[in-house]
Amino acid sequence: MQDKQPSGHTQPNAAVTALREALGADVVSLPHEFAGRRNSDSSRMPCDEPLALIRPRTTEQVATVMRICHEHRQPVVTQGGLTGLAGGACLLGGEVALSLELMNGVEAIDEVGAAMTVWCGTPLQVVQEAADAAGFMFPLDLGARGSCTVGGNLATNAGGNRVIKYGMMRDQVLDIEAVLADGSVVGGLRKMIKNNTGYDLRHVLIGSEGTLGVITRAVLRLRPKPRAVSTAWCGLPDYDAVTTLLRRAQEGLPAGVSSFEVMWPGYYDFVLSRLPELRAPLEGRHAYYVLLESSGADPQRQADAFEDFLAEMLETGVISDAALASSESDAAAFWAIRDAPGEYQRLIPGRVSFDVSFSITDVGRAAHECEKLLRARWPNATILIYGHLGDGNLHIVVQEPDWPPTTAPQVQEVVYGVTGAMGGSVSAEHGIGTKKLKVLGLSRTPAELAAMRAVKAALDPLNILNPGKLLLNVV
Amino acid sequence: MQDKQPSGHTQPNAAVTALREALGADVVSLPHEFAGRRNSDSSRMPCDEPLALIRPRTTEQVATVMRICHEHRQPVVTQGGLTGLAGGACLLGGEVALSLELMNGVEAIDEVGAAMTVWCGTPLQVVQEAADAAGFMFPLDLGARGSCTVGGNLATNAGGNRVIKYGMMRDQVLDIEAVLADGSVVGGLRKMIKNNTGYDLRHVLIGSEGTLGVITRAVLRLRPKPRAVSTAWCGLPDYDAVTTLLRRAQEGLPAGVSSFEVMWPGYYDFVLSRLPELRAPLEGRHAYYVLLESSGADPQRQADAFEDFLAEMLETGVISDAALASSESDAAAFWAIRDAPGEYQRLIPGRVSFDVSFSITDVGRAAHECEKLLRARWPNATILIYGHLGDGNLHIVVQEPDWPPTTAPQVQEVVYGVTGAMGGSVSAEHGIGTKKLKVLGLSRTPAELAAMRAVKAALDPLNILNPGKLLLNVV
Repeated sequence: MQDKQPSGHTQPNAAVTALREALGADVVSLPHEFAGRRNSDSSRMPCDEPLALIRPRTTEQVATVMRICHEHRQPVVTQGGLTGLAGGACLLGGEVALSLELMNGVEAIDEVGAAMTVWCGTPLQVVQEAADAAGFMFPLDLGARGSCTVGGNLATNAGGNRVIKYGMMRDQVLDIEAVLADGSVVGGLRKMIKNNTGYDLRHVLIGSEGTLGVITRAVLRLRPKPRAVSTAWCGLPDYDAVTTLLRRAQEGLPAGVSSFEVMWPGYYDFVLSRLPELRAPLEGRHAYYVLLESSGADPQRQADAFEDFLAEMLETGVISDAALASSESDAAAFWAIRDAPGEYQRLIPGRVSFDVSFSITDVGRAAHECEKLLRARWPNATILIYGHLGDGNLHIVVQEPDWPPTTAPQVQEVVYGVTGAMGGSVSAEHGIGTKKLKVLGLSRTPAELAAMRAVKAALDPLNILNPGKLLLNVV
Repeated sequence: MQDKQPSGHTQPNAAVTALREALGADVVSLPHEFAGRRNSDSSRMPCDEPLALIRPRTTEQVATVMRICHEHRQPVVTQGGLTGLAGGACLLGGEVALSLELMNGVEAIDEVGAAMTVWCGTPLQVVQEAADAAGFMFPLDLGARGSCTVGGNLATNAGGNRVIKYGMMRDQVLDIEAVLADGSVVGGLRKMIKNNTGYDLRHVLIGSEGTLGVITRAVLRLRPKPRAVSTAWCGLPDYDAVTTLLRRAQEGLPAGVSSFEVMWPGYYDFVLSRLPELRAPLEGRHAYYVLLESSGADPQRQADAFEDFLAEMLETGVISDAALASSESDAAAFWAIRDAPGEYQRLIPGRVSFDVSFSITDVGRAAHECEKLLRARWPNATILIYGHLGDGNLHIVVQEPDWPPTTAPQVQEVVYGVTGAMGGSVSAEHGIGTKKLKVLGLSRTPAELAAMRAVKAALDPLNILNPGKLLLNVV
């Protein structure tokens, strides 16, 4: 029911009118009032304009928004820092955007309980810094830390660099508070690690990409702050050696493994040749490179144990060569090689990227299979492979400078084909959004998709929460 | 539709007849064929006889069972090792019992992926031993390990002694396979740690106490086997010292904290005076006792660091006195004090027991409040308090030899009253079953219960999976 007015402004529909009446122009703005604002996330998926931009300040206001939208069957897209890579926060047309940007800040830190209560519009980096200031660590970390928000991290069950030791976002959460489609509020912001009182609604909502509820606050679990970080760059002779190193390190390092990043030689050669600021940590060429990190409590004993461990791995031939970081700047130089994807936009525009995962056993074979099939079809393509091996997470990047736009779907067909055939996941950490809707069926069976649709219909019977995302054919 | 036959046997109803026809007498037995078999769990809740006992051998047979029961609206109670403490596996009348006892055994161990695929009828101890034989640890551990099964551990999201380091049962699971109410099979037994492909059905089913599906197989995550365990018994001056010790240990011990068991002096005095085989680890009396354990990879460095840590805690007055276990038998003697509840049945029959949890900050105050209120009303009662402080889990046991049966509900009213008022959980690890149905509302809001009912109705619209458990008033 939208008509162009003589002024050129679109007439608000009944839902937007009711929202504006209930919450005021301060909370609910109309398109001409937020013109120029970015609405799309970082996925480069198509994105429409919202009918209204709603910026509540309290959970009660979010509940009012959902009650009114439910009454009017008005679709709602919840937005956080707009850094998502799957299109989950994009607008498909006809929705209002619900931004949690003003529900921002750390509410309380419980130092005895090692817990932080936080509003979901808070940027991840603010949470990390507040934890640090209180003498703790909040372990979730990813490149978008400065802009991404806790709400977005929860909605997508974010992963990142330290999953091998600390787990995904869902593992950092003691409880949540959320508003459901009908405006009811669930989640008591409780701080217990053990709490077996019925279905775990927290885990139902986390990772649901805004399709089951609007998470407004969370109680995050804080971890002891590591006092020492040991880092090494290793060259290895074959894939068996890579998995052996992982297992030995997990068994033998006193503080365990906090990062285990594997790089294939194609990736290593490419980034070192294109980025002159990078230094090669080792002489010679190896079949695999591993960036190994262990972080713990006891600087001297840990350093000694780490050095002993590397010596043993060299002696037994598990690693062919290794460089031990003897300073923070050494460690930073190693990490710069792994963080080179930050330069992709400049180095390899128009690339096709994958965020897939496999059983750790299968990662080596999956990478080999993908590379072989891609190489056979596009002999001159740049193919870069690297990943967080401890989690089974593999990143594959494929590019050729003069590809026609029709090539990307063909490349995807190859990689997702291997992923589906080997029982992998088409989305290790980015989520489904709209970008992976068509390949979700490679990682989920029809019975699983039906069960997900049943859960969706139960919690959002009118399909007003982020419709068209995560699941196709929701009734 | 049951009529007594001249033989004295009950005539099977249409569902049982169809089940027997489809699966044979080998899988589906009638009451006269399993007479004398125990049907109830360890909760002492009332328990009826099942109409039939179904013991499938394959997931396909479980799917057939559920398809037939769905068609006939036949209620089903899934049973594991029958060691539950909340009545979740008891029969309320009119159900068939679905026992997974023949779906038993470790299917595969993936040493590279550190994962074990296991049938859900497998006892926990078999899993622990198989992990150990492969050079790993499966960390979930509880007293009933010899009889309880993986399926029951999953259905109740079991906890136990090592939650502080390794988490609950849901944290040990990479994927599941489950049969839903209509016989559809979900869960691909995948081995990825990172897998963001839609709603996490695994976490919906884990902890649902058999009300949303029948979990048939699971992929369990294995951990590195610790090579060294350091154990100490500490006496502390006040509750602040207890929480300080926890935080300092988590920050300062190289391998972290694997157990942190707190005992109040009432408990300590009681078990030492009643069990002559127990030895007091320390002279004198303290306000709190803590059994501290750290288990890691490096025997010598860990032992040194542990000793240094205890010395520092003594110097700074966090602990008043400590005994360091210098042998496995010392450690066993410390644990014997904490494991004394195994003797409760003999020492304090007719006791009322609680498994509640609070924010770690609140545990001391909650214990004090409960003790004060209980003592005021029952001055001569035995009141024992202890718990896994790192998880906020508090066990409270109350008894007086000559209590009338009417006292138990009054004791429960006191403790659950404090739990509800302080935002605690009425079930830390045992679950709701039938035993805690009436107090669930102290830990969950009406909106949360409504959301749970919506999920239940979505996945089990005919309410045939363990009806009458976990949630009241399911339609």
